[in-house]
Amino acid sequence: MRADQRSDDALRPISITRNFTKHAEGSVLVAFGDTKVICTASISNTIPRWLKASGRGWVTAEYAMLPRSAQERINRDSVNKGRAQEISRLIGRSLRCVVDLDAMPERRIIVDCDVIQADGGTRTAAITGAYVALCDACRVLTAEESLPVSPIVGQCAAVSVGLVDGRVLLDLCYEEDFRADVDMNLVMLADGGIVEIQGCAEGAAFPRARMDEMMDVATTGINDLLAIQNEALGRG
Amino acid sequence: MRADQRSDDALRPISITRNFTKHAEGSVLVAFGDTKVICTASISNTIPRWLKASGRGWVTAEYAMLPRSAQERINRDSVNKGRAQEISRLIGRSLRCVVDLDAMPERRIIVDCDVIQADGGTRTAAITGAYVALCDACRVLTAEESLPVSPIVGQCAAVSVGLVDGRVLLDLCYEEDFRADVDMNLVMLADGGIVEIQGCAEGAAFPRARMDEMMDVATTGINDLLAIQNEALGRG
Amino acid sequence: MRADQRSDDALRPISITRNFTKHAEGSVLVAFGDTKVICTASISNTIPRWLKASGRGWVTAEYAMLPRSAQERINRDSVNKGRAQEISRLIGRSLRCVVDLDAMPERRIIVDCDVIQADGGTRTAAITGAYVALCDACRVLTAEESLPVSPIVGQCAAVSVGLVDGRVLLDLCYEEDFRADVDMNLVMLADGGIVEIQGCAEGAAFPRARMDEMMDVATTGINDLLAIQNEALGRG
Amino acid sequence: MRADQRSDDALRPISITRNFTKHAEGSVLVAFGDTKVICTASISNTIPRWLKASGRGWVTAEYAMLPRSAQERINRDSVNKGRAQEISRLIGRSLRCVVDLDAMPERRIIVDCDVIQADGGTRTAAITGAYVALCDACRVLTAEESLPVSPIVGQCAAVSVGLVDGRVLLDLCYEEDFRADVDMNLVMLADGGIVEIQGCAEGAAFPRARMDEMMDVATTGINDLLAIQNEALGRG
Amino acid sequence: MRADQRSDDALRPISITRNFTKHAEGSVLVAFGDTKVICTASISNTIPRWLKASGRGWVTAEYAMLPRSAQERINRDSVNKGRAQEISRLIGRSLRCVVDLDAMPERRIIVDCDVIQADGGTRTAAITGAYVALCDACRVLTAEESLPVSPIVGQCAAVSVGLVDGRVLLDLCYEEDFRADVDMNLVMLADGGIVEIQGCAEGAAFPRARMDEMMDVATTGINDLLAIQNEALGRG
Amino acid sequence: MRADQRSDDALRPISITRNFTKHAEGSVLVAFGDTKVICTASISNTIPRWLKASGRGWVTAEYAMLPRSAQERINRDSVNKGRAQEISRLIGRSLRCVVDLDAMPERRIIVDCDVIQADGGTRTAAITGAYVALCDACRVLTAEESLPVSPIVGQCAAVSVGLVDGRVLLDLCYEEDFRADVDMNLVMLADGGIVEIQGCAEGAAFPRARMDEMMDVATTGINDLLAIQNEALGRG
Repeated sequence: MRADQRSDDALRPISITRNFTKHAEGSVLVAFGDTKVICTASISNTIPRWLKASGRGWVTAEYAMLPRSAQERINRDSVNKGRAQEISRLIGRSLRCVVDLDAMPERRIIVDCDVIQADGGTRTAAITGAYVALCDACRVLTAEESLPVSPIVGQCAAVSVGLVDGRVLLDLCYEEDFRADVDMNLVMLADGGIVEIQGCAEGAAFPRARMDEMMDVATTGINDLLAIQNEALGRG
Repeated sequence: MRADQRSDDALRPISITRNFTKHAEGSVLVAFGDTKVICTASISNTIPRWLKASGRGWVTAEYAMLPRSAQERINRDSVNKGRAQEISRLIGRSLRCVVDLDAMPERRIIVDCDVIQADGGTRTAAITGAYVALCDACRVLTAEESLPVSPIVGQCAAVSVGLVDGRVLLDLCYEEDFRADVDMNLVMLADGGIVEIQGCAEGAAFPRARMDEMMDVATTGINDLLAIQNEALGRG
Repeated sequence: MRADQRSDDALRPISITRNFTKHAEGSVLVAFGDTKVICTASISNTIPRWLKASGRGWVTAEYAMLPRSAQERINRDSVNKGRAQEISRLIGRSLRCVVDLDAMPERRIIVDCDVIQADGGTRTAAITGAYVALCDACRVLTAEESLPVSPIVGQCAAVSVGLVDGRVLLDLCYEEDFRADVDMNLVMLADGGIVEIQGCAEGAAFPRARMDEMMDVATTGINDLLAIQNEALGRG
Repeated sequence: MRADQRSDDALRPISITRNFTKHAEGSVLVAFGDTKVICTASISNTIPRWLKASGRGWVTAEYAMLPRSAQERINRDSVNKGRAQEISRLIGRSLRCVVDLDAMPERRIIVDCDVIQADGGTRTAAITGAYVALCDACRVLTAEESLPVSPIVGQCAAVSVGLVDGRVLLDLCYEEDFRADVDMNLVMLADGGIVEIQGCAEGAAFPRARMDEMMDVATTGINDLLAIQNEALGRG
Repeated sequence: MRADQRSDDALRPISITRNFTKHAEGSVLVAFGDTKVICTASISNTIPRWLKASGRGWVTAEYAMLPRSAQERINRDSVNKGRAQEISRLIGRSLRCVVDLDAMPERRIIVDCDVIQADGGTRTAAITGAYVALCDACRVLTAEESLPVSPIVGQCAAVSVGLVDGRVLLDLCYEEDFRADVDMNLVMLADGGIVEIQGCAEGAAFPRARMDEMMDVATTGINDLLAIQNEALGRG
Repeated sequence: MRADQRSDDALRPISITRNFTKHAEGSVLVAFGDTKVICTASISNTIPRWLKASGRGWVTAEYAMLPRSAQERINRDSVNKGRAQEISRLIGRSLRCVVDLDAMPERRIIVDCDVIQADGGTRTAAITGAYVALCDACRVLTAEESLPVSPIVGQCAAVSVGLVDGRVLLDLCYEEDFRADVDMNLVMLADGGIVEIQGCAEGAAFPRARMDEMMDVATTGINDLLAIQNEALGRG
């Protein structure tokens, strides 16, 4: 049995709270168990220089952890910048897969994902919540008639899966992640298309068969997350 | 009448939620109306070099705003570092006034104040919440018998007061702060002692009599905040 | 008696030397006893982006200490940047209170205050000298007919006052400042209007009555400084 | 046909030149077609603080591109630091999977991978070359009797595979990579164990079946690279 | 006898390899014995702001060492930035002496000199190779008819000379440089004109007569280098 | 005639004021005409790590310009750091030539040279003044009996010389420096030994004969400066 009595292929309790703060066009508090991330989507009219005059828009993301979101306090400056940038880039790529950038000309949406409490799976929680915040920001754009239709053309969610003591576990908490021999993150669309797969052996490599097994379990988890997103967004 | 129907000398609705996140020794969500700040107090055994072998401890604070805590998104890097450092120093000085540093030898407590939603008065909310987080961290130190008695020897809270359209207003929200001719912040102890006073004319200077009036109003506000802190801390 | 035989409410010997260096439009060496600061005012045609097309001008200040202006050498890079930025902002706000920014359209004046010898009260000396440098720069603007009239519409000076061993002392030197229980800085206009008040307890809070007493003494000091400024500027 | 007449599942011409520069304990020039990377392995006695007294060693990597290794010159300072750190971390993790860190107590080996000419697949070339440089550095450690046996306990190589115009292509050059709908990098051991898998859709997601197909092709490529490494190292 | 059997006034074996990498408009690998530097010349259309509308062009250089180009590994960040910038400026000034900047309006050529193996004399090798890379980049500009004639109007090379154990030695290797009492670098044109002379006593000053002697030996070395450049460039 | 009526081989009016500020162990204001530099020498007990346990001491220098020391204001952060570091290193090397580092074990003297007014020749004025500040700091070390004898074993001064409109001019002011075809700086000892020579053509190279001529004129200037230093130091 897992520490929180979950079965191996079960998600932690997931919650998605919209309108968490008031200034951002989209603002979501997402919780995967004890992992909690504030995702805000901000609409900006300043686009990257290389996009000027292209008629396209852009979506970027920035990920960070509050200093005491983790068990040990993280210094604000000596924080693991490499890891944070890597995750920021991952979130941005994932979101751009569900947006028609041509349908949001000269607009930039920046999604900030700030972890307020970390207990494993912060990047997957961030992607899952960021999608909802992004949808809300796009609703603002259509509601105020800045855009005729929403540029959202798909739906994505993300989950982690790992190999711990020879078992394939879904949605690892920190303690499980710490002991895992393999840590895999999967970002997937509603149609089963893979957006990102990142699998990483911690010390010991893993055979192909194990990878297939992990993919199966992760796919189930993604489907649950997509349903939870839809419910939060009030989609039939 | 003020926008939110408050009288001129009334605080906004104040709430102090302890144990807001789980890792920090003290963790508080403080709200002054729509201004919301997460204050976490972390116990550290690394003290500044100049304090080594002095037998004393130290308390510092760090203040920051999440990128979209404000109406306009703030870039993470080009954020107003000068302002943030100034406020960090203010919070640290205020907290050190209520702590017997000799009673926490070789310990450092770092209080992080991260604004998740800003609507005026972020520094005063931060100080008021930080005090409670600090108390909780000190309770951990005594509960685990790291220290025989708590080093907390006083109680402090902070509030803003301003001169807006010729009226003295307590606890300004952003819209009032923006229009204010004078912005004053007061940090005070339970015994009425002044820890910090910072008054700042925006464009037009103010006469001494106005300053006295503002001090009177602020003092009343401080007393209310001290009571709310005590209630949150379960003090008789 | 104070170390330099001054009475408790006396300023140190003050001197203001105009045209101290040749390139700046305004250049002043100000001395408050052994505290010596070079204040240069530079006219610039580059204004902050947010001011463009507003028809207004702007005044900013930058404060720094030479590495060996203090008793201990300060590293150029690890210098206390937070403190310096806090003081820079204070000087800038003070100067903007005596300038009609609408009367200097699209102009920026930058006042650099570089401490060459520190003995307490560097920020108050800097503000007092910066005002004179600013006046000289504005005289250049009118002399060369860039502006029809000087945008200077007031006069400001600053002084420190502190509580040392139970006595209220004016214009603290470093040794007094170091021992002070309270350190207060006051920036005031010629008409008695308060521009900035910053009072800060070092360890022990102070009662309201003490604050009033300190304000009285500081006001006297300010008046003396305003007279010295006028004399330096050759104003009847 | 591919631009360079390769079949879809063929590697570019691969070369591994040992002893490329003279100072480093291991120094390799690796070429995957026109992609050329200098990999140097440096032995250091300074280990990260958190490893002190653990009796273990450590292996890290740093990846960078020379300014004009790419078609457009990259500014030295504004270079894409996030991408470089992400790749540095990937190389380090991959190498640590083939090293027994307990067998190199208190030693650190730093592998620098500097791209002198980029034409796609710089990270996979870097990992493949870095392994050889690492082996050479470990040979120095055993030759000089610093260590009784080499800490190398495995063999790893890396290759890219992508989906371009509906075809699965091995070892993409820049022009192919630029047009690819999916870009996948695989790091694998000699025993077929997966160390890292990173697959990333550029705009359009990809179905699971395509992923399996890409894995098959990549595995073949890895096996060829492992043989080339062995030949370069003079292993029977 | 010198370590490598050279006579006191002999250069080390010199080689200049053009077209070393494929992206840069000029790309040279230059070797002065074991010192090896990649010099790439990149044509850019972005010129410094202060040159806009002047009708002139500009040539700059950037010098850096790969981390393990030296005997001890150099940290990428804590690398001796001051020294690198000093050398970058020297290379840039030297190259600008052989270019008619008016003949390359609104063009900038950036020459990157990256040391891949250091054994003394990296700056002189860099200048000597950079000249050849610069010529190649200018040939591209004329070949593609961006410019009617090449802006190259002179030829420069550089060599070191030093005083070691009382002997004047040409083109010092690292071990000689380390022991030298005087280290001098000379940059000279084909017509014997001096572009730069930098002589530096390490501990003990040197008399004028010694300087003249060193200049004589250096001049001979320069002439040999100029011939090698011409041969590399296929100039009659 | 030169702008200030000097003959071609005449120095500007030189002044050296000792004890210019009160905290530093050595503090000098040096003026070469309108060029004015504050040179302070600070004694430190922290020596560079690589010098630990060597029994030797060290002398370093740091050079900077106040923002408005020049005709155009220099931004504090975007200041020409490369140039400043280059000059800092030059000053440090020059001073180390006149000090017996073995005679000041485990001591470091840091000489800060801050230009308060620039009019050409700031680096030569800095070296000339820094020498006097260094002597004063060493006198402190012997006076307080930290060292048995002063580690000063020589005397150095520096001067610029240039080629302007075909004439060799000594000690260039800014306006002459700006127009110069060649700019040369010479650092020399009292015994005529050369410490540093830096000659730099601005656009057009210069023949060897001109260099000899410039050396002759500079040598004369150095001798005058050495006499002025001696007088300032009260040396017979």
